[in-house]
Amino acid sequence: MAYTGKYIDKADYRVFCIIGDGESAEGSVWEAMAFSSFYKLDNLVAIFDVNRLGQSEPTSLQHDMDVYRKRAEAFGWNTSVVEGHDVEALSKAFYDASTVKGRPTCILAKTFKGKGIPGIEDEENWHGKPLAAKSEAAIKAIEDNISNKGPHGLTPKSPSNQAKAVNISNIKLSEPPTYDKSAQVATRAAYGTALVKIGKNNDRVVAMDGDTKNSTFSIKFKEAFPDRFIECFIAEQNLVGVGIGCGTRGRTVPFISTFACFLSRAFDQIRMGAISQTNANFVGSHSGVSIGEDGPSQMALEDLSMFRSIPGSTVFYPSDAVSTERAVELAANTPGVCFIRTSRPNCPILYSPDDNLQIGKARVVRKSDSDKVTVIGCCVTLFEALKAADKLAIDGVNIRVIDPFTIKPIDAETIRSNAKETGGKIITVEDHYPEGGLGEAVCSAVACCRDITVKKLAVQEVPRSGKSAELLEKYGISANCIVKAVNQILSQ
Amino acid sequence: MAYTGKYIDKADYRVFCIIGDGESAEGSVWEAMAFSSFYKLDNLVAIFDVNRLGQSEPTSLQHDMDVYRKRAEAFGWNTSVVEGHDVEALSKAFYDASTVKGRPTCILAKTFKGKGIPGIEDEENWHGKPLAAKSEAAIKAIEDNISNKGPHGLTPKSPSNQAKAVNISNIKLSEPPTYDKSAQVATRAAYGTALVKIGKNNDRVVAMDGDTKNSTFSIKFKEAFPDRFIECFIAEQNLVGVGIGCGTRGRTVPFISTFACFLSRAFDQIRMGAISQTNANFVGSHSGVSIGEDGPSQMALEDLSMFRSIPGSTVFYPSDAVSTERAVELAANTPGVCFIRTSRPNCPILYSPDDNLQIGKARVVRKSDSDKVTVIGCCVTLFEALKAADKLAIDGVNIRVIDPFTIKPIDAETIRSNAKETGGKIITVEDHYPEGGLGEAVCSAVACCRDITVKKLAVQEVPRSGKSAELLEKYGISANCIVKAVNQILSQ
Repeated sequence: MAYTGKYIDKADYRVFCIIGDGESAEGSVWEAMAFSSFYKLDNLVAIFDVNRLGQSEPTSLQHDMDVYRKRAEAFGWNTSVVEGHDVEALSKAFYDASTVKGRPTCILAKTFKGKGIPGIEDEENWHGKPLAAKSEAAIKAIEDNISNKGPHGLTPKSPSNQAKAVNISNIKLSEPPTYDKSAQVATRAAYGTALVKIGKNNDRVVAMDGDTKNSTFSIKFKEAFPDRFIECFIAEQNLVGVGIGCGTRGRTVPFISTFACFLSRAFDQIRMGAISQTNANFVGSHSGVSIGEDGPSQMALEDLSMFRSIPGSTVFYPSDAVSTERAVELAANTPGVCFIRTSRPNCPILYSPDDNLQIGKARVVRKSDSDKVTVIGCCVTLFEALKAADKLAIDGVNIRVIDPFTIKPIDAETIRSNAKETGGKIITVEDHYPEGGLGEAVCSAVACCRDITVKKLAVQEVPRSGKSAELLEKYGISANCIVKAVNQILSQ
Repeated sequence: MAYTGKYIDKADYRVFCIIGDGESAEGSVWEAMAFSSFYKLDNLVAIFDVNRLGQSEPTSLQHDMDVYRKRAEAFGWNTSVVEGHDVEALSKAFYDASTVKGRPTCILAKTFKGKGIPGIEDEENWHGKPLAAKSEAAIKAIEDNISNKGPHGLTPKSPSNQAKAVNISNIKLSEPPTYDKSAQVATRAAYGTALVKIGKNNDRVVAMDGDTKNSTFSIKFKEAFPDRFIECFIAEQNLVGVGIGCGTRGRTVPFISTFACFLSRAFDQIRMGAISQTNANFVGSHSGVSIGEDGPSQMALEDLSMFRSIPGSTVFYPSDAVSTERAVELAANTPGVCFIRTSRPNCPILYSPDDNLQIGKARVVRKSDSDKVTVIGCCVTLFEALKAADKLAIDGVNIRVIDPFTIKPIDAETIRSNAKETGGKIITVEDHYPEGGLGEAVCSAVACCRDITVKKLAVQEVPRSGKSAELLEKYGISANCIVKAVNQILSQ
């Protein structure tokens, strides 16, 4: 929010953040501390409430204000230690903070938990507990402590340089996604292209990345709109925090990108984002074993599961460059948490600029009157399914092939009706672990139907390093594996 | 690993950790820095490889060694800045580190990426790229730089105080789980009881928590075995790192507990743990809306999905105190990542000490010859299912009720055979979001069967605060909701 105020809104509103001392052991706090000083966010004040007590025992630093001070200073913040129950001292600290240029301010407030309440102040074992028999005495102690119970007569000044109203609705690609039908384009590259196009259309589109911009292709946006790109370095919890902060109060439309597997570092931030009614778009590249040689630490194989479990989320898994561009356009206009899964390898072009791709609408990409099985895949595995269809056709076996486009919501109607036309037989193929991804989304979509069966092809173990095609084969999601699965089902 | 060496093994082996400068922006690094100095881990050396360059641009601090030094010192480490290409300087730094008592040592090594390779040293845009045409010149430059190619004649000394061999197999509860059949016991409380029992049986069982030990009940273990309990404070990425480290090389059997939702902060550590063939046990309390008033930030509703997606994982969701104790005993002896989901409310006792609870074996807890539907629930929702069974029985409708005990592996055989006996009708009820949890595990288990349908009852939106029973009702997973779902299915 402070970054948006200073660099995007260029307004003089200030941002205040209260941090518990127990909470300040979280690394995400120090990611944000490093970020805020690097970007000279002098409109930001963090107040550490150092009350000495955690939930189950004293904090590791208790009231060692000097260690807090050294840490905050080492992370580049203007820092002052104050008595946190002294209103005058706090007022001075807030005023001083407003005069500091080029650095955020950290107010380290030494406090006592339950201050002024007899038998509770600075005592352990009161975290999150009702006071029960001690309630009345506590309320009386607090009331006795209020010296000015009437109207205070103070009116806070409004910011003099207000943030202007902005329009973040009806965002469009500046030009339609037009690709040569013979082109081979990675969906991650199409992401960068689309991001620039919506950035041209609406100047409130912003993007951020965690030092992977040359792999996710968000670098294209940085090159086109350097003032609207935020490099967050290798600190994904804060990357997500910055994205969510930028989108707060509808000030911007944030697109947050890194390798999809690295977003797992920020699962709690994304979860809490959904609880806080966040509007933010996440783009994870390098999904699945198809990335090849870089190995399992870089392969996202649980990202669909993670983003599907976020309430109200929309999960895009576009198969080609055209649908990726449409996914970006749709995400920009969709409230809540959106996730777009992109892939590393170059893939063929499936769609035309005038294909009407919609959230929750699957596309039937191969169909005949004699299809025996419905195969559902996305991107890399969709093209494997199409290859399998060609191989099977040689032996006279036709299969239907479906591209779901969004995994959440999943197009249950199209899946069910096509399954019924193909003997109730579905095979799903996904570059993902078997849990929580495409396969289980499809299982859920047909759970209420008798006479439909689903066979899931997915990556069943921690994969190794290898060439992309080798890994698809080894982990059971290649065209050959699909052919085998189809033949097996038809022989049952 | 360093904590285990110093406090559990009490051996003199030393631990070395290399951290990239780009990587050092990760908050998890600073969680570990705070932890290591708090516990005076003078057997630990961290080497920061400060080579100035990230993947896509220079790091935020580049070669500002003084800022690195201030940060490491503020976090309590003995710190030295060295020229990272000067072997003599490095040797001295490592020797000095071995003489420092009471503090870990941080060696800040100033280096140049691609050192000594013409046209590449200290240049951008070479991260993770093949050198291609520059390969031969690079190999020659490196070879020319090797001044002593023969045997070096040095033999490193073995540690003088070796870690003794340990036995971590066949761990048992010191006494069977015996509860009065009329007792009401929360599974989280039974977790603490069981942990003490296996701790009595095997002195290599260790436990750690993130300042929630009085809620997860790991505090019982701390009280019984203070030397084997590690308070990790509110820093879940490091909590998980410490647990994984303790379990490395089979030195201990770690149990890592916090609120289940907070484990989402460490998803990447758990994911990387699985890739690293980790043996570790995770216990997440306060699952679902049944925690009541504390609200959605504290409610785990995506934890089953997260742990199911970890390859090779075992996911326990015990329903009563007896099965919780058995889950702890089984987890202690099961390789890979184990997760035990515990709940906040007190619940009835279902099982006897001699019930043989097994991984992948569901229990049929209510059965008649005229059951019309199979209902599958866990813990809170299992007891709602039993209440629903009582209500429905009044109207002459019998239902079968199943406790799966483990969600992964799920007992597909028991579920299928019981479903077939109840007209192919299954209802799942879970205190979890609809994606990736019990419902989808069951959908997957019956995906290959024609004539079985699954209706999922789950929490469909971000919940509010309220009393436990009110929330079960509002979010559609109460006994009343199960009755309604059964009647609806039977009227179709």
